[in-house]
Amino acid sequence: MTFLQGLDLTAVFIFGLTGALAASRAQLDIVGFVFLACLTAVGGGTLRDVVMGRDTVFWVAEPLMILSATAAAVLVFFTAHLLESRLRALEWLDALALAVAVPAGVGLALSMNAPWVVVAIMGVATGTFGGLMRDVVCNELPLILKKGELYATAALIGAVVALTGVALGLSSSLALLVCGLSTFALRAGSLLFGWCLPVYRSRPPRH
Amino acid sequence: MTFLQGLDLTAVFIFGLTGALAASRAQLDIVGFVFLACLTAVGGGTLRDVVMGRDTVFWVAEPLMILSATAAAVLVFFTAHLLESRLRALEWLDALALAVAVPAGVGLALSMNAPWVVVAIMGVATGTFGGLMRDVVCNELPLILKKGELYATAALIGAVVALTGVALGLSSSLALLVCGLSTFALRAGSLLFGWCLPVYRSRPPRH
Amino acid sequence: MTFLQGLDLTAVFIFGLTGALAASRAQLDIVGFVFLACLTAVGGGTLRDVVMGRDTVFWVAEPLMILSATAAAVLVFFTAHLLESRLRALEWLDALALAVAVPAGVGLALSMNAPWVVVAIMGVATGTFGGLMRDVVCNELPLILKKGELYATAALIGAVVALTGVALGLSSSLALLVCGLSTFALRAGSLLFGWCLPVYRSRPPRH
Repeated sequence: MTFLQGLDLTAVFIFGLTGALAASRAQLDIVGFVFLACLTAVGGGTLRDVVMGRDTVFWVAEPLMILSATAAAVLVFFTAHLLESRLRALEWLDALALAVAVPAGVGLALSMNAPWVVVAIMGVATGTFGGLMRDVVCNELPLILKKGELYATAALIGAVVALTGVALGLSSSLALLVCGLSTFALRAGSLLFGWCLPVYRSRPPRH
Repeated sequence: MTFLQGLDLTAVFIFGLTGALAASRAQLDIVGFVFLACLTAVGGGTLRDVVMGRDTVFWVAEPLMILSATAAAVLVFFTAHLLESRLRALEWLDALALAVAVPAGVGLALSMNAPWVVVAIMGVATGTFGGLMRDVVCNELPLILKKGELYATAALIGAVVALTGVALGLSSSLALLVCGLSTFALRAGSLLFGWCLPVYRSRPPRH
Repeated sequence: MTFLQGLDLTAVFIFGLTGALAASRAQLDIVGFVFLACLTAVGGGTLRDVVMGRDTVFWVAEPLMILSATAAAVLVFFTAHLLESRLRALEWLDALALAVAVPAGVGLALSMNAPWVVVAIMGVATGTFGGLMRDVVCNELPLILKKGELYATAALIGAVVALTGVALGLSSSLALLVCGLSTFALRAGSLLFGWCLPVYRSRPPRH
């Protein structure tokens, strides 16, 4: 298993947990848990692989991915009732999964020598699309559209950090590590301290 | 036309009927019927073909598919007012389409010698994604997320039955037939008799 | 840059404006604007390229596309408060983008010698999927499902006009021009004068 596959597998497991938590909020049965866990877990990476024209989508090449998402679903099915707040757990696990999936997307695009714009987009898309599908299918407001939170921003800055690191001569794995840490730090800061960018308001206040 | 194409064509027509019924509930015009019918009819198979890396997506290779979904849309546009309950018709036709599309997905993945995990996922994805897109676009709660019904479960068990059949030495077409029958039986049992698996509850009853 | 790439770039910029307007209605920050602008801008063309099996998706081959959608997002972020009605601006820009994206889809499919059914579908899909994703992600009723408006119809008739033009011996670029004009005329007529096709009603009036 390569380093990039390891990143994918980690992201798949954590995103799988968030999908299963969403299933618990929708009161599905165990197969519904597995379905939503797999959708969330492989959604972003599948988009990345299809758009980048990889010969084989990552979870077709390595069936362990689906088994890992399934294990996450089963784990949540039997333990979620122990959680104080499933919504809060979902948000924090989603932050962690984002911080692993962004470097997974950036790393793959770098390894295929994509232009830097494409590398940045692949980081953001791989990080965000699984969760976006989860929220759209569950008919919830996507986390990425929540007002006054850093989400797409955390993913984008993480990707830019990785690109800067590579440009400055960092090794690829070190750049991906810094990318993941920056993404997580920004998202966590947003969840804990309300860090945010100014949002659009239709009529700015007059002075 | 091969056996697998025949399965695809059948699933396309029946899913097309369900898409058109959804369009009738949204009070669209005839082109809206065709649009939703085509989206529902080819959504699952397109995902399957793109993820499996087929050279040509099934409905690009065989334009009859789109014509068949279009015919389904026109048929529903002029006859849906004769139905007692369009929602009930939609659910039963969706069950039938599921029971044809799951073997269509399993059959293609088997013919490409995919690992068994991938075969099972392709069965479920081909069976469920067209209907999922239909429901998401129409802003309805997806059938697959309905509490206390067998849906993903019916598809998954159908796929597992096919894999078991093949492992036991059944011919591929016989295994696909048993797969379709099991899927339909489970889904129909759920619609008729309320068969279901236990669903997740946040706080299990204490004794 | 080829003629088809020019069409794509124009559609990307205008769809980017509509995505950013949707972001302003959801009160997102600047990165949220860029995210929704890019999703809307490249959604339809990405689907087209993946389904047609192009070697490289158009915006991976030409990173200018993403920069153009980003520029549209920034422009809207700083000027949208000057608009009288952002919803009305969104609808009209969406009509314009549709009228550029339909010929972009038709043109690519023609250049790959696709069967005419596939050409028509590619026109409609390229024209409508970006906006559909924008509306689904924002949890709004998709424009394409609005009762009593020409939308899918405008796209479909535009595609049929292009096919007719080519069959009659028009040059490809002239056929695409007429295609875009017909699409825009029908959609604009629907917005201005309420042009529509009869919609389905569950119980037709009795005489």
